[in-house]
Amino acid sequence: MTDTRVLTPASESSKACIPEHFRKVRGTTVSLASPLSAEDAQVQSMPDASPTKWHLAHTTWFFEQFVLDKFQPGRQSSHPAFGFLFNSYYKTVGAHQERPHRGLMTRPSLAEVHAYRERVDHDVTDLLERSDSTELQRIEPLVTTGLHHEQQHQELLLTDAKHLLSLNPMRPAYRETGSGSPRSTTASSAHDAQDLPQSWPHSWIDYPGGTHTIGREPDEFAYDHEGPAHERVLRPYRLASSLVTCGDYLRFIEDDGYGRPDLWLSMGWDFRNEHGWEAPLYWFRDDDAWFVYTLDGPRPVDPREPVSHVSYFEADAFARWAGARLPLEDEWEAAARTALDPGGTATHDERDERDEHRLGRFGNANLLETGVLHPRPLELASIDADAPPHQLFGDTWEWTASPYVAYPGYEPPPGPIGEYNGKFMCNQFVLRGGSCATSATHIRASYRNFFPPEVRWQFTGIRLAR
Amino acid sequence: MTDTRVLTPASESSKACIPEHFRKVRGTTVSLASPLSAEDAQVQSMPDASPTKWHLAHTTWFFEQFVLDKFQPGRQSSHPAFGFLFNSYYKTVGAHQERPHRGLMTRPSLAEVHAYRERVDHDVTDLLERSDSTELQRIEPLVTTGLHHEQQHQELLLTDAKHLLSLNPMRPAYRETGSGSPRSTTASSAHDAQDLPQSWPHSWIDYPGGTHTIGREPDEFAYDHEGPAHERVLRPYRLASSLVTCGDYLRFIEDDGYGRPDLWLSMGWDFRNEHGWEAPLYWFRDDDAWFVYTLDGPRPVDPREPVSHVSYFEADAFARWAGARLPLEDEWEAAARTALDPGGTATHDERDERDEHRLGRFGNANLLETGVLHPRPLELASIDADAPPHQLFGDTWEWTASPYVAYPGYEPPPGPIGEYNGKFMCNQFVLRGGSCATSATHIRASYRNFFPPEVRWQFTGIRLAR
Amino acid sequence: MTDTRVLTPASESSKACIPEHFRKVRGTTVSLASPLSAEDAQVQSMPDASPTKWHLAHTTWFFEQFVLDKFQPGRQSSHPAFGFLFNSYYKTVGAHQERPHRGLMTRPSLAEVHAYRERVDHDVTDLLERSDSTELQRIEPLVTTGLHHEQQHQELLLTDAKHLLSLNPMRPAYRETGSGSPRSTTASSAHDAQDLPQSWPHSWIDYPGGTHTIGREPDEFAYDHEGPAHERVLRPYRLASSLVTCGDYLRFIEDDGYGRPDLWLSMGWDFRNEHGWEAPLYWFRDDDAWFVYTLDGPRPVDPREPVSHVSYFEADAFARWAGARLPLEDEWEAAARTALDPGGTATHDERDERDEHRLGRFGNANLLETGVLHPRPLELASIDADAPPHQLFGDTWEWTASPYVAYPGYEPPPGPIGEYNGKFMCNQFVLRGGSCATSATHIRASYRNFFPPEVRWQFTGIRLAR
Amino acid sequence: MTDTRVLTPASESSKACIPEHFRKVRGTTVSLASPLSAEDAQVQSMPDASPTKWHLAHTTWFFEQFVLDKFQPGRQSSHPAFGFLFNSYYKTVGAHQERPHRGLMTRPSLAEVHAYRERVDHDVTDLLERSDSTELQRIEPLVTTGLHHEQQHQELLLTDAKHLLSLNPMRPAYRETGSGSPRSTTASSAHDAQDLPQSWPHSWIDYPGGTHTIGREPDEFAYDHEGPAHERVLRPYRLASSLVTCGDYLRFIEDDGYGRPDLWLSMGWDFRNEHGWEAPLYWFRDDDAWFVYTLDGPRPVDPREPVSHVSYFEADAFARWAGARLPLEDEWEAAARTALDPGGTATHDERDERDEHRLGRFGNANLLETGVLHPRPLELASIDADAPPHQLFGDTWEWTASPYVAYPGYEPPPGPIGEYNGKFMCNQFVLRGGSCATSATHIRASYRNFFPPEVRWQFTGIRLAR
Repeated sequence: MTDTRVLTPASESSKACIPEHFRKVRGTTVSLASPLSAEDAQVQSMPDASPTKWHLAHTTWFFEQFVLDKFQPGRQSSHPAFGFLFNSYYKTVGAHQERPHRGLMTRPSLAEVHAYRERVDHDVTDLLERSDSTELQRIEPLVTTGLHHEQQHQELLLTDAKHLLSLNPMRPAYRETGSGSPRSTTASSAHDAQDLPQSWPHSWIDYPGGTHTIGREPDEFAYDHEGPAHERVLRPYRLASSLVTCGDYLRFIEDDGYGRPDLWLSMGWDFRNEHGWEAPLYWFRDDDAWFVYTLDGPRPVDPREPVSHVSYFEADAFARWAGARLPLEDEWEAAARTALDPGGTATHDERDERDEHRLGRFGNANLLETGVLHPRPLELASIDADAPPHQLFGDTWEWTASPYVAYPGYEPPPGPIGEYNGKFMCNQFVLRGGSCATSATHIRASYRNFFPPEVRWQFTGIRLAR
Repeated sequence: MTDTRVLTPASESSKACIPEHFRKVRGTTVSLASPLSAEDAQVQSMPDASPTKWHLAHTTWFFEQFVLDKFQPGRQSSHPAFGFLFNSYYKTVGAHQERPHRGLMTRPSLAEVHAYRERVDHDVTDLLERSDSTELQRIEPLVTTGLHHEQQHQELLLTDAKHLLSLNPMRPAYRETGSGSPRSTTASSAHDAQDLPQSWPHSWIDYPGGTHTIGREPDEFAYDHEGPAHERVLRPYRLASSLVTCGDYLRFIEDDGYGRPDLWLSMGWDFRNEHGWEAPLYWFRDDDAWFVYTLDGPRPVDPREPVSHVSYFEADAFARWAGARLPLEDEWEAAARTALDPGGTATHDERDERDEHRLGRFGNANLLETGVLHPRPLELASIDADAPPHQLFGDTWEWTASPYVAYPGYEPPPGPIGEYNGKFMCNQFVLRGGSCATSATHIRASYRNFFPPEVRWQFTGIRLAR
Repeated sequence: MTDTRVLTPASESSKACIPEHFRKVRGTTVSLASPLSAEDAQVQSMPDASPTKWHLAHTTWFFEQFVLDKFQPGRQSSHPAFGFLFNSYYKTVGAHQERPHRGLMTRPSLAEVHAYRERVDHDVTDLLERSDSTELQRIEPLVTTGLHHEQQHQELLLTDAKHLLSLNPMRPAYRETGSGSPRSTTASSAHDAQDLPQSWPHSWIDYPGGTHTIGREPDEFAYDHEGPAHERVLRPYRLASSLVTCGDYLRFIEDDGYGRPDLWLSMGWDFRNEHGWEAPLYWFRDDDAWFVYTLDGPRPVDPREPVSHVSYFEADAFARWAGARLPLEDEWEAAARTALDPGGTATHDERDERDEHRLGRFGNANLLETGVLHPRPLELASIDADAPPHQLFGDTWEWTASPYVAYPGYEPPPGPIGEYNGKFMCNQFVLRGGSCATSATHIRASYRNFFPPEVRWQFTGIRLAR
Repeated sequence: MTDTRVLTPASESSKACIPEHFRKVRGTTVSLASPLSAEDAQVQSMPDASPTKWHLAHTTWFFEQFVLDKFQPGRQSSHPAFGFLFNSYYKTVGAHQERPHRGLMTRPSLAEVHAYRERVDHDVTDLLERSDSTELQRIEPLVTTGLHHEQQHQELLLTDAKHLLSLNPMRPAYRETGSGSPRSTTASSAHDAQDLPQSWPHSWIDYPGGTHTIGREPDEFAYDHEGPAHERVLRPYRLASSLVTCGDYLRFIEDDGYGRPDLWLSMGWDFRNEHGWEAPLYWFRDDDAWFVYTLDGPRPVDPREPVSHVSYFEADAFARWAGARLPLEDEWEAAARTALDPGGTATHDERDERDEHRLGRFGNANLLETGVLHPRPLELASIDADAPPHQLFGDTWEWTASPYVAYPGYEPPPGPIGEYNGKFMCNQFVLRGGSCATSATHIRASYRNFFPPEVRWQFTGIRLAR
């Protein structure tokens, strides 16, 4: 997902909780950046990624540009170059640093960017606290958008840092170990993988199809492209009860899945050949075993955990190999709504109540809040507590077979924030459900993430459909 | 469209007419190639295009590989290298020449390729005539597919030759003039264009939406991706009564349409900047007037004729500029079905009768058979004869807003011919309706063409929707 | 060599022989092109190469531009676009077609280019025959330059056509066989090569060094960069008595010569890795034997014949592997002068007499006139007839260790012909001695050819020095 | 210059002064890096450049690899990955990080690299102090080489940091101002420049030519490629008495020097067009005035100071425009020897005495020790104190017309250090005389620097010859 989209105003936050939520989300970003040194925070490992420092600054610029400059017109902006340096792609608010060169900006320093954050945080908090309820009604939607924007960048911060550190021959961990990451202790050799039962944790769940409402909830925050809500007629379909595991994927590899053009999209086959793909990103062989680089450093591939860091091309080829297909985004969303509200009868207030701490909505899903920062084997979660399908939220984003297009009747909102929401609707595929790097207060059933089909550095995995 | 797809067996041809149709279609290819010299037929002007000689040989190889090798097992093949040279991308039938190097193959000569065609034509005709009806039932579907495949290559032959000749500083015509091409005689300066009434030939046609059957007719030939036929629920929509004209497009250019990022998809804007697009492909300025290169050589842009050779990116930007959008492929198909059979009551036999000469089905549409080989101003056709929407078939392919994906329940057919039908379902958009280079015996309401959004060398134009 | 350089006026030709020489040289070009079809003559296989048709046209344009336009001002030029199409790089006489796109010009046809040649030939011949001796004195130098220019293009025509045909999977021969090409009949397997005596045909010839005059002869035609003649002090040196053979080179290959970075220039090593070089251009393995593509088609590598189609990088690495080095161009020239005139006493007239048929000067050297068009094993020539060093002229150009720079006091001549002589003096190395595709009336001891160090499609070989 | 070359053992240092010199040179590197933050020290701005942190580590690795590992075999090396990370290109001592990815190594941190330096410095000093004179005789040459190697990297550290900081839109200075950099205070508009006298500070100095000894002094440290010393016969020549100034260069620009292909080498012209060069690197226009980015930040171009950051292509084009040429490296060296020792009679001891503080040898030349870090206008130095030619040493490296080739009889020394000295002798040109970033204890009359002709990020300038 490139990086931001517009909210439609929502009423979920009160004057009391907005400043608190602001502080909490802003603090999470700083906390996620804290294991990274000034050097780590400086470097851009590829054009698709951004430096940690840039994420820290850009999310701050967003509040300065769209909140403070608007509601505190007399306030003196930070360094005049920051608008240029930390704008991502909002062309109507001015020129910006070319994306692939973000890593060249060694000044301002990381410390200066933290000072910039603190100043803006202070001013936004001050603004929120000093505003009356009329003003708040105008400010809050922008702040809420800014916080959702920030949460997207939290995920990118982690995936970008992971990509950078993975390129270091020393394969350093992102953080000190012992921080909650479960580690398997034995290598999964190719041989072991083959010994696994053919379809170990999977079963299929039948959905009857029919007419479903797809898209945003009327009273919740959502990005513009999640609306308008609309009816879709679905044919009966089945979804796998859990994500494709590394063990499943090893069988695909061992069955020459990367060597058979009949399994691949034409463009995927060319891509695979050009880049020499033979396994998911971050997998590497040592002796006869497969290892995987994680945010806690390298370790043997665990056949029980969901496979991650695969492209759409690989997800699609795997599905074809497995005699299945990828789900449509509508199918996924209908299933997710059912899972969250089995009877379909919860009112908004009931949902609110259940979601008081929000995490409740997703059970024990492996989202950012678990701190694991890596997909988790299914049995580590208490399967019994939840009816399948498992892992709908968290662990990995799930590639769908749906190209990213506008919903019927979609209109991008006016003005700079909304100016560019639809402009990425080309050559991308929709992903659903969030990952282990997505916040529970950010994801929802109607959430549409999107990436080009060749992208692998996000936590992207596979759920099969039929 | 890359180049071929599989038929589902159809019964439309009898033993009598198949050989005749075979001779006719094969002869058309030779006829279209005839204005081109051995030099013209040799060169590949870009990786997307192929040399005329290669088209002549590849379509022939198709019959040798999929018909003769199968039904005349003892027959001696042509030169053993031909399978390598003239296979396009059928990986299961062996390795092939890399696409961008097709133009390097100066041997066999054009004359040898014509001899190859004649030998294969003779053998196929012989096979068809010698076969009994049981055999014919197995042969005919492959021959029919081969002929539709050949018709696709006829269109590519023309557009590839046009691209090649356009790069010659002498801007030579593809054929001797006087061959039926209408020419306007005065330049359309920017000033003239602005004098045109704001929306000169356009009006909107309302469609009520509702449930429509989309996809192949049960008894007609169709490619696999046109099926399965299925129901779609459409919201009410409007289609423009005619194609966007060069006059319309000039207003877009003069309104700085190529300079405003807010009108463009992000990827389109990058593409436009990288390639310096400022007008459709084949347009060029001389003094203060716009000219266009056509298969009959250069001439002033005629503001009344449909604009052509625009990418999806340009079509999409134009639509946004015009306050409209591009139609969905379902919307287009529903409208086309209505236009062809207003009451929706025609039986298959009735359609057959009406279509005896096939062109009848499309009225006086500007398809390949008119010989114009360029989009035609609307008033040159007898508008009165036809109710709108005009120009649904012929003139230019119409970009739709629909990414090219599988219909629900689509399964690619087994075997080499069908092996690769779905493998292009990625990063392409659907086009509908055929162009002035498409044969009337090839196009149909359910026909799905597809190209990447940046492609411009086909006869691709714009119909607006709302 | 890029393609042309300026003459300094010379008096070697009389009114009688200039038209005859003109007809002969111009006829040779047509004759060399004659085995090639219109298709063959059309295609440009890489940016460095040009189509045969372009060579035919460009050499003709040279006479039209620099002779006819100057001395027949009223004459009507050929098609006005020809100046653009067939100018190579003379920026002062106007814009020109970009080099990599020469192959896209399918019009004018090959037949039209031949007609263009005939018209210009007629007019030049006419001009030469009608001019009085005063006029001739002004015309002749330009015609002589034009003919030397044409002879350079004859060599390029052959090497460019060879490159093109080599890319065809059918590996067609340039000409019908039986035309004088010696063919070895047995494959030289790696094993055979190792059985050869360690340094089979080689011995070293000692040169005492001392002061030598380097550069052009006072009364002979030469390009500007062959002057001014000047003194050079050479240290004692040795030259190999013959060219490095394919057998020698096979030992280098088998000793992992392509796998040892210590043998290579840094830039050469990078180039070798990027392009996957493992043998000279045109060599390929089949089973366990090495084959080579020649203008007469593929055949086994003959270990006795000089290795050809190696880059400077390979020549330099081979020399290092062999414990030797490449000669300096001064060393080569001093040796060549001694070989041509052992006593150093021949007067110009004596040389003229000896050179009456010119070939005499070079003994039985394997130059263009032998028609072999491939390097020839040493023993096939009558070694006894010649004292060593053998093969100084013909067979292959010999890479020297001398970067291509100006001689002391060099000044490029004024005007368009001379404008660009020095502009290639950067990142190129000098080659000496001519090849099997160089005319005997073109080569001389002072002749300096030059190419970038990575180039391989010329007949370029190796002579060792110490 | 890529980065290191081998010494021939020299006896100039005693046991007493080697450790002191070691500490001093090593300390200079740290001092030069000290204004740069951890962020600044991390980033690689282009493949040709390296991060400051890498320079700090690589120069340290050099001592660990070639001194400590050899003379303290039992010593425990630093982190095993450092050999991989900080080897530049010594292929015989193992694999290494690919050059363009040096900036991706965020770990070890800058602080860890400084600790690495301190440990190695301690160990080398300890080794030097504990060794007896026999051992010292073996150690010293390697240490001396390591220090010269380090001094080359000091210059690269500065030029690489300058390149990086110049890309920041805020154009930050490398160091706090006030550190000795002279600044002109008024902009030099194009108009001002034209008002300068035509050839303001220049005059020509005649050299008679004749036989000169070129190459290393017998008893001084020198890199291998400075030998063997040999005789060269020079024709009479003239050198400009001072470097080409920015004022001179402005006249070249205003005379359309960047727009006239006749002034440029063919390859230079293509390069200029591809990269859009219109002025030296680091020049930029603001309103009507030219500014230049320096290590002290941006300021107006001073027409009196030597032009710098020009490529060989620009230097060559400027010389052609000025009716002059670039000097040969032999001409430069003969002039420099005469300047340093006018009578040619100084003994080695006399030179030693005069050079006690070494700077004495070069008068008040603007080398690294002045701390200016930018070329200096001629009159700021006390011209009177020195006879011309001025600025032979320091200010800017001077492009010569000599391709970088081996001297006659050159043999690269055996072993890893010397393995690669000659491997860069291809497509590079020699520069002479050092720059404002070169240490006085590093430069000498025989010193040969070399870079490809398109390179501009070094302090490279122009001295004319005739």
